[in-house]
Amino acid sequence: MKIASNIRELRAALDAHKGKSLGFVPTMGFLHEGHLTLVRRSREENQLTAASIFVNPTQFNDPEDLARYPRDLPADLGKLEKEGVDVVFTPTAEELYPKDTEISINPGHLENLLCGMSRPGHFRGMLTIVSKLFNLVRPERAYFGQKDFQQFLLISKMVADLNFPITLRMLPTLREKDGLAMSSRNAKLAPAERRQAPELYRSLEMGRDLIDAGMEDALRTVAASMEYLIEHTSFEIDYFSIVNPITLEDLEKVSPSTPYLMAVAAYLGSTRLIDNILHYPPAG
Amino acid sequence: MKIASNIRELRAALDAHKGKSLGFVPTMGFLHEGHLTLVRRSREENQLTAASIFVNPTQFNDPEDLARYPRDLPADLGKLEKEGVDVVFTPTAEELYPKDTEISINPGHLENLLCGMSRPGHFRGMLTIVSKLFNLVRPERAYFGQKDFQQFLLISKMVADLNFPITLRMLPTLREKDGLAMSSRNAKLAPAERRQAPELYRSLEMGRDLIDAGMEDALRTVAASMEYLIEHTSFEIDYFSIVNPITLEDLEKVSPSTPYLMAVAAYLGSTRLIDNILHYPPAG
Repeated sequence: MKIASNIRELRAALDAHKGKSLGFVPTMGFLHEGHLTLVRRSREENQLTAASIFVNPTQFNDPEDLARYPRDLPADLGKLEKEGVDVVFTPTAEELYPKDTEISINPGHLENLLCGMSRPGHFRGMLTIVSKLFNLVRPERAYFGQKDFQQFLLISKMVADLNFPITLRMLPTLREKDGLAMSSRNAKLAPAERRQAPELYRSLEMGRDLIDAGMEDALRTVAASMEYLIEHTSFEIDYFSIVNPITLEDLEKVSPSTPYLMAVAAYLGSTRLIDNILHYPPAG
Repeated sequence: MKIASNIRELRAALDAHKGKSLGFVPTMGFLHEGHLTLVRRSREENQLTAASIFVNPTQFNDPEDLARYPRDLPADLGKLEKEGVDVVFTPTAEELYPKDTEISINPGHLENLLCGMSRPGHFRGMLTIVSKLFNLVRPERAYFGQKDFQQFLLISKMVADLNFPITLRMLPTLREKDGLAMSSRNAKLAPAERRQAPELYRSLEMGRDLIDAGMEDALRTVAASMEYLIEHTSFEIDYFSIVNPITLEDLEKVSPSTPYLMAVAAYLGSTRLIDNILHYPPAG
């Protein structure tokens, strides 16, 4: 496995394999099974797999959140090596954002919805770093997890609107045995918080069950799920929404025969967790 | 010469030459010798040359300006064929901007200076189409004329800030025998306007001569050049500026030993013309 800590080394590492199909897994490190599943899928579909580890400062609206984001580069490199990754890109912020960098990607109106409400600038920073990494790595395919669904939706839109020659894959969220969505941020939970954390997914499942049982009023479903969370946990809810999975607009009516995204973001102490259920009616 | 009128045809035409170095000349058509010089340079430096002809609606702030922009696709294709261009991309606006397109490039503060002042949204639209064309064509080198210096500066900044793997070349402005900078818009000038048009470049030369003769006050130089234009022509001046060629900020003091860009935009009737002199002190 070639570790490229700057752009020149990345170029050299990739040029050595010119002509091979290339899959790419961009990450912020502190890797878990969710990331490794993306890597495995890339390895299946491409002759070469590159990953990046970069905690991108411009997508953090809160400097404290950036400072406390978990990091463990040696462990990450060990995991990627074991998975057979060919090239890992571990750039510095100084190299990716030299002085006077200011051109960015404008995400359009979706940046103001869901996670964008409480994280101003997050999606602009995220799309800008993804476009930079796409230009630097030039993959044929790139892999993302469903937990960050809004992120995937915006990257899909960017790839379409700006004609990036890249195929995107979104893979299902991986979960711990108790249902908690895998996330690097889980490492920040205190033991008591960790015990409560699976309730976040349980509140989503409860909402889905209500819809399956015939509750059509989206707001009532949301209210029931939120009430469950508030009563049984110390989660502080940022948002809990049932939306159209393309436009991210709130749905008034919902049923098992309509596509919907049920998405939640909530704080346990100072750790912000997100999760979602994406529902598409079975075909036929 | 392969003419690709949609993205699928472009992909097929370029894939047929995979592995060859590719130069790209993006244009809005109505080609003149300036464009053809860019094509020739690309042909010298690359194994394959692609050009595009697309009057990009999103960079026109004025619908009337868009409607009256000159077009002559058959003549353009004849010229490109004669120059030995390999692939010409002539997309439709419908294909490049499907419904709901909204992700764009944010140009940063330079978009508000010089031409940006009177053309709100112009540079955002321009950078967005250039990024789309770069992603579609994926050239190693791209060629632009100095007449649109601010455009080139912004594209350079985008390529740097977003890490596009593309080398840019700016070639000197080509001029008619009387000094008028070649421009597709010159075709819109009435005969009486066309006779006055070379005075635009003359006013720039006069400013440069004043600087060469020791006038250090940039505003006085600008004032003298503007006065010349106003007295001798019916140009209506949009701006006349002497600026730092990197930051585009106004210079107070100027001399032959400082780098400067002297740039002008002015209307003859309803036709907006631009021109500039870019001065870098001789090395040594």
